[in-house]
Amino acid sequence: MNHFAIVNDSMLPESQASLQVTDLAIQRGVGIFDFFKVYKGKPLFLEAHLDRFFNSVAIMRLEPEFTRIELKNKLIELIRVNGMEQSGVRVTLTGGYSTDGYSLAKANLVITEQPTKLPVSLEENGIKLITHSFQRQLPQVKTIDYLMAVWLQWQVKDAGANDVLYHSNGTVSECPRANIFIVTPDNKLVTPSNNILKGITRSEVIKLAMSDIKVEERDLRVDEIFSAKEVFITSTTKHVLPVSHIDGRQIGKGVAGEISRWLALEYNKLVFG
Amino acid sequence: MNHFAIVNDSMLPESQASLQVTDLAIQRGVGIFDFFKVYKGKPLFLEAHLDRFFNSVAIMRLEPEFTRIELKNKLIELIRVNGMEQSGVRVTLTGGYSTDGYSLAKANLVITEQPTKLPVSLEENGIKLITHSFQRQLPQVKTIDYLMAVWLQWQVKDAGANDVLYHSNGTVSECPRANIFIVTPDNKLVTPSNNILKGITRSEVIKLAMSDIKVEERDLRVDEIFSAKEVFITSTTKHVLPVSHIDGRQIGKGVAGEISRWLALEYNKLVFG
Repeated sequence: MNHFAIVNDSMLPESQASLQVTDLAIQRGVGIFDFFKVYKGKPLFLEAHLDRFFNSVAIMRLEPEFTRIELKNKLIELIRVNGMEQSGVRVTLTGGYSTDGYSLAKANLVITEQPTKLPVSLEENGIKLITHSFQRQLPQVKTIDYLMAVWLQWQVKDAGANDVLYHSNGTVSECPRANIFIVTPDNKLVTPSNNILKGITRSEVIKLAMSDIKVEERDLRVDEIFSAKEVFITSTTKHVLPVSHIDGRQIGKGVAGEISRWLALEYNKLVFG
Repeated sequence: MNHFAIVNDSMLPESQASLQVTDLAIQRGVGIFDFFKVYKGKPLFLEAHLDRFFNSVAIMRLEPEFTRIELKNKLIELIRVNGMEQSGVRVTLTGGYSTDGYSLAKANLVITEQPTKLPVSLEENGIKLITHSFQRQLPQVKTIDYLMAVWLQWQVKDAGANDVLYHSNGTVSECPRANIFIVTPDNKLVTPSNNILKGITRSEVIKLAMSDIKVEERDLRVDEIFSAKEVFITSTTKHVLPVSHIDGRQIGKGVAGEISRWLALEYNKLVFG
């Protein structure tokens, strides 16, 4: 239980890892992060996650006091010390201890690692989504802003659903922590490309799919998801996860479709070998 | 310098006031707050701020472990201990130490107090705003989400301006930390009423103005601000602050207008006696 975490240059038990209340994450919700899985001591797609992390840093103009190499060394050391069989590592960079409660200061680095369960079984019949009209601010940045997502958890629960799908002006974007794909009636794989956070799993799945099926990254209309043969979502935690219902309406046959199952299998092979 | 702060049931030097990194403010930007001024030991408009605080708590479904009376006693005790001549007190309630990094837990209470300067002088010729198309999420809740505002600081600076004014679909809403008022060519005072956080200073200014001028709370079009005789913003920190330029265009005579100056004076009288 008492695994270690890192705050700036200190490694310490997670229960002792803290930030002063003047940090801009607490004061103004300002921070970015990235999250990757570790399997048998090996970080998955680490370079892609670090690329995205430093892209978020640059867009938010945060001021880290470490290089990419230094961050990598910290990550490797934490993973070694915790020695978990399978885990998720979260690297957060906040706006720092602001003197005026508004302007960015020297960024604070927080690294935490949690043991994770095995990926979702392929026997899964698919999850249920509800839709909500909302556009995330700074969508291309992996910010810590999940305010709407957390607020919507009650609606998700009340609807007997598992997650929410955002759309805006008739166009689908993403789930709060996952990307969405559909299989069209003419067997194309379509996934949104604008106003979203581009997931690492999303790009791996696109690469896997391309050999056997036409893939389109383009705006996806809300009505297209309801007439899709298959819908699935992708994320670092969820891998490839079929969707059976959206807003109570059945998608395709209401069970994990053929292409969804194929990609889920291929992705698991890629990750677990 | 080393004034005290409160974290849940502990009063301690602010430099030692901290939250564990598993708090949902740090993980997911989830928290609400309120902020009021203290003048000669007396909190200003405390009941109105507490009303709004508990309204934010209710909408976000946070789970505080204190009553209104208990919170008030904490505030009064902190103000007494710090003994500042003039200050601003911030009461923050976060999503708490979530076990899954996503679901709300027992909320964490953070109270900080900072000495403040005297209010802006009436000699002020007015500040400069730039506009930006953006709608705050959950606008009626005083959340800690200022991600866009902090990100826009660079644009504000590059434009030689002081603050930003949000609008969406041709309708003006608010500044990140202030409400906006205009004086129309036919001498009405107009301020937005929808999709905004209703400021305590805003409502006090409306009450002061109503005796002498017609006040309309309604949607305000972007083009109306550019043809206004006067524009000013209101906030707990800024009181009534005239605006001289928006997006580089001069408003009215480009100096603090007659009605703005009158309301600034009246508001200062109300606050300082």
